[in-house]
Amino acid sequence: MRTICLFIAMIATAAAANAQQTSDSVVFKRIADDIFINSKAYENLRFLCKQVGPRLSGSPQAEKSVKETARMMKELGADTVYLQECMVPHWVRGAKENALLVDDKGGTFSLNVCALGNSVGTGKKGIKAEVIEVRSFKELEQLGEKGVKGKIVFYNFPMNPTNVETFRSYGEAGQFRGRGPSMASKYGAIGVMVRSLASNIDDFPHTGATTYNDSFPKIPAIAVSTRHAEYVSSELKKKTGMQLYIRTECEMLPDVKSHNVIGEIRGTEFPNEIITVGGHLDSWDLAEGAHDDGTGCVQSMEIIRVYKQLGIKPKRTIRVVMFMNEENGLRGGRKYGEVAAADKTNKYIFALESDAGGFTPRAFGFTAKPEVLSKLRNWVPLFKPYGVYEFSDGGGGADIGPLRPLGTVLSGLRPDSQRYFDHHHAANDVFEMVNKRELELGAINMVLLLYVVDQYGL
Amino acid sequence: MRTICLFIAMIATAAAANAQQTSDSVVFKRIADDIFINSKAYENLRFLCKQVGPRLSGSPQAEKSVKETARMMKELGADTVYLQECMVPHWVRGAKENALLVDDKGGTFSLNVCALGNSVGTGKKGIKAEVIEVRSFKELEQLGEKGVKGKIVFYNFPMNPTNVETFRSYGEAGQFRGRGPSMASKYGAIGVMVRSLASNIDDFPHTGATTYNDSFPKIPAIAVSTRHAEYVSSELKKKTGMQLYIRTECEMLPDVKSHNVIGEIRGTEFPNEIITVGGHLDSWDLAEGAHDDGTGCVQSMEIIRVYKQLGIKPKRTIRVVMFMNEENGLRGGRKYGEVAAADKTNKYIFALESDAGGFTPRAFGFTAKPEVLSKLRNWVPLFKPYGVYEFSDGGGGADIGPLRPLGTVLSGLRPDSQRYFDHHHAANDVFEMVNKRELELGAINMVLLLYVVDQYGL
Repeated sequence: MRTICLFIAMIATAAAANAQQTSDSVVFKRIADDIFINSKAYENLRFLCKQVGPRLSGSPQAEKSVKETARMMKELGADTVYLQECMVPHWVRGAKENALLVDDKGGTFSLNVCALGNSVGTGKKGIKAEVIEVRSFKELEQLGEKGVKGKIVFYNFPMNPTNVETFRSYGEAGQFRGRGPSMASKYGAIGVMVRSLASNIDDFPHTGATTYNDSFPKIPAIAVSTRHAEYVSSELKKKTGMQLYIRTECEMLPDVKSHNVIGEIRGTEFPNEIITVGGHLDSWDLAEGAHDDGTGCVQSMEIIRVYKQLGIKPKRTIRVVMFMNEENGLRGGRKYGEVAAADKTNKYIFALESDAGGFTPRAFGFTAKPEVLSKLRNWVPLFKPYGVYEFSDGGGGADIGPLRPLGTVLSGLRPDSQRYFDHHHAANDVFEMVNKRELELGAINMVLLLYVVDQYGL
Repeated sequence: MRTICLFIAMIATAAAANAQQTSDSVVFKRIADDIFINSKAYENLRFLCKQVGPRLSGSPQAEKSVKETARMMKELGADTVYLQECMVPHWVRGAKENALLVDDKGGTFSLNVCALGNSVGTGKKGIKAEVIEVRSFKELEQLGEKGVKGKIVFYNFPMNPTNVETFRSYGEAGQFRGRGPSMASKYGAIGVMVRSLASNIDDFPHTGATTYNDSFPKIPAIAVSTRHAEYVSSELKKKTGMQLYIRTECEMLPDVKSHNVIGEIRGTEFPNEIITVGGHLDSWDLAEGAHDDGTGCVQSMEIIRVYKQLGIKPKRTIRVVMFMNEENGLRGGRKYGEVAAADKTNKYIFALESDAGGFTPRAFGFTAKPEVLSKLRNWVPLFKPYGVYEFSDGGGGADIGPLRPLGTVLSGLRPDSQRYFDHHHAANDVFEMVNKRELELGAINMVLLLYVVDQYGL
C-alpha cells in the first residue's frame, strides 16, 4: 500500500512538474532563439580579441578591457555597472626570449619556447647547462642533487591522450608546470624547461603560471612546444652532453591596481539573493585570450541583453562579473569572495563560471549538496534539446571558488573539451578559433540554467 | 503478483546485463585507448586531403583515391580488399566561372560564386538578365511567368539559425539548390543563383548537386557566398533594374567507370552475416573533402586496424566500404545495394555510415524496428564515457539507404553539427579544419557500436 501511495505521489509530482516544465520549455525556446538571432556575444568577443587584444593583468590592455566590458554591459542594458578594485601581480615577459639546444660540437637548434608566467628571467647573458630529461618527480628525486645540481631539468610529461576529458590529462600534467621549477631548484637545478600542456603535436609553446616555493631559489622556467619536446627527447636519447641555453627577460614588477567589472540586473522579489555569473577578463600575453576566457566573459554578459530584450525580470539579482587576474594570481576572484564574505546585506546563493572554452556545451558541473543537485537534475530533459545532457557532481570555476565557504552553490559550464588544449595559453588562442554557434549554444545553456535557478530557487 | 514477477525478472535481466556490460566496458576501453594512441585515421585523412586532393566522381583524383584507400585497407590488415565497379556521372566545372551584379548605370560588382554540381554551363558569352529575389517557391509561383520569364532568379533563403541541429536547417534550405533551377525554368527563367547553404556569413560559395526536372529546359545555376547574398539582397532593395551576369563553363560528360572500394575482415562464426560500415570517397571539386567525407572514410577503416592490433576476431563479417559518387549521383551506394539484393549467400544485417563530419560524436541514429532499437539502447550507458549519449530513432546515410528494402538495420554517426555547414561543399573543407581527437572519438564510437552488433547480433 505504501508502495502504491508513493507511486501515486510520484505520478502527481511528475504531472505538476511536467506542466511547469512545458511552460518553461516555451521560455527556453524564446531565449535560445533570441540568442541565436540577436546575440552580441560573437561581436563582443571580436572586439575583446581584436580591438583590445592580450589582457595580462597589469597590462594597458587589461585596463582597456575593464573600460570596454563596463561599456558593453551598460549598452546591453544592465541596471548598474561598477568596478570592484583589486591589486594584481604585474608580471612582464620582456622583449626577448629564446632557447637553443646545443650539442657537444657546439651545433645549435633553436627551440619554440616561451617563459612560464610568473617566472624569473635569466638575465641578459642567459643560462647554459647540461639538460636532463625526466618524466616524473620520482625520477627527479632518484637523480637527486648529485644528478641535478647545476643542470637544466626538462620535464617531458605528455598529456595522456586516452582520457576523453582533456581537463583530466591537463590536471595530471599540470603539476610539472606548477611545482616543477621549485622541485628542480630543491636539488640545485639552475633552470627548467617544461613540455607544453597541449593535447596535440604542434609548434606553439603554451605558457601558464608557475608557482615558486619560497623555500628554494627561484630559477627561470620556460615551456617548449610539444613538437620540439619530442625532438629534444629524441636528441637526448641519441647524444650525450647536450646542453640547453635559455635567455628570458621576464620579471615580476610591483603589484598594480586593477578591477573586476560587475553588471547587475536587480531582482524584483528577492533582490538580496545574488546569482553570480562570470568569466575572467584577463588572459595570457601571447594570444587574444579568445577561448581563455573571452568566450566566458561574453557568454556571461548575454543574460543582460536577452533578459532586457525579452522583458524577463529576474526575481533575484543577477550579477555578471568579469573577474580580473585568474591566470596568475586569482586576485579578482579572491577579492569578490572577500567582499561577499563581508557583505551582511546579500546572500550569495548561486555562482556559475564559464572558463573551459567557447565550444559546444555538453554538461554543467555542480558543487552542491546532494538534494540540491538532485532537484536541479529534474531540469536536464529541458536542456537536452540545447546540447546539455548531464548535470554532474563536482564543478565550478577558479574565480567563484572563494564563494564556497559561504555555502554558495557553484557551477561550471562544461563544453566539449577536445580542442581546448590545442589553443590554451598559446598564440593560437584567437578569435578565428571560436565558432559563433558553439559560443552561442554555451551562452544559451548558461542563461537557461540561471533562469531556472532564479525562477525556482535552490 | 504479475507485477512482482515482472519486477524480479527485470532485476535478473538487469543483473545479467550488468555483468556482461562490465566485461564489455573493459573491451571498450582497450579499443578507445588503442585508437587514441595508435590510430591511423588522422594520417590517412591527411594523405587523402593533401596527396590526393579533391575527388569528384570521374576525376583522376577520384581514381587515385580508389587505389590509395585499397592500399590503406591492405596495410591496415584487411583479410581481403576488392573493387566493386560502378558507372558514375562525369561532371566538370571547367576553367572559368564568375558572376557580376550590374546596376542600371553599368557599374559592376564581382560576386563570390561557383556553379552548382550537375549544372549546365552558360556558354562562353555568359548570360545577362534582370535578377529577381525570392525567398520561397510560393513567391516564385506568385510572380509567375509574367514576373520570371527571361530573368535570373535569386533564391535567398538563409539556413534557419534557431535549429540547434544544423542538418534540419540544411534540409529546409536545401530544396532551393535541388529543385530551384527547374522550378524557375518552369516559369521561363534563364538562370538561377542560390544563396549558399552555409550556417555562417562568409565569402565561400558552397556547391552541391542540383537536380533537373526533365520537363523543363535546363538552365545554368550557381551558388553565391552568404555575405554576397546579403549584399545582393540589400542592393536589390535600394535600386531597380539590377542585372546579373553569369558565366560558367561546366558541363556533364558521358558516364565513366569507377569503383567502390571494399575491405573485409571475415567472420569466424557467422561469416555470411555482413556488417557494413563506410563513408563516401568522392568529394566536391572545390576542396579537399575533409569533413565531407574523408573523415567518414578514415574512421570506417579504423576497425580493421584496431581489430588486428588487439586480436579481436569478429563473429560476423565486417565489410568496410568506401562508397563512390555520393555527391552527385549515389551510384556507388546504389550499386552496393543492387549487389546486396542479388546476393543469395549473405545476409546484410547492419550498416553504419559516417557522413556528417569528423566532429565530436554525440549520438547514433537508427532505422530499425522498435524492439531492435530498444535492445540497442541498453548499451548507451557504455557509450557515454566516450561522448555518445543517445541512440535516436531515425538515421542512416545516403550510401547505405539502398540496403533498407533488404531489412538491414541502418545507422548513422551523429557528431556535433555546429561547424559542419561552415565548410560543407566549400573550399574551406580542408584537413586543417579537422581536429585529431574529435576525429578519433568518432572512430572509437563507431568501432564500439560495430563491436556490440557483431558480438550480440540484433
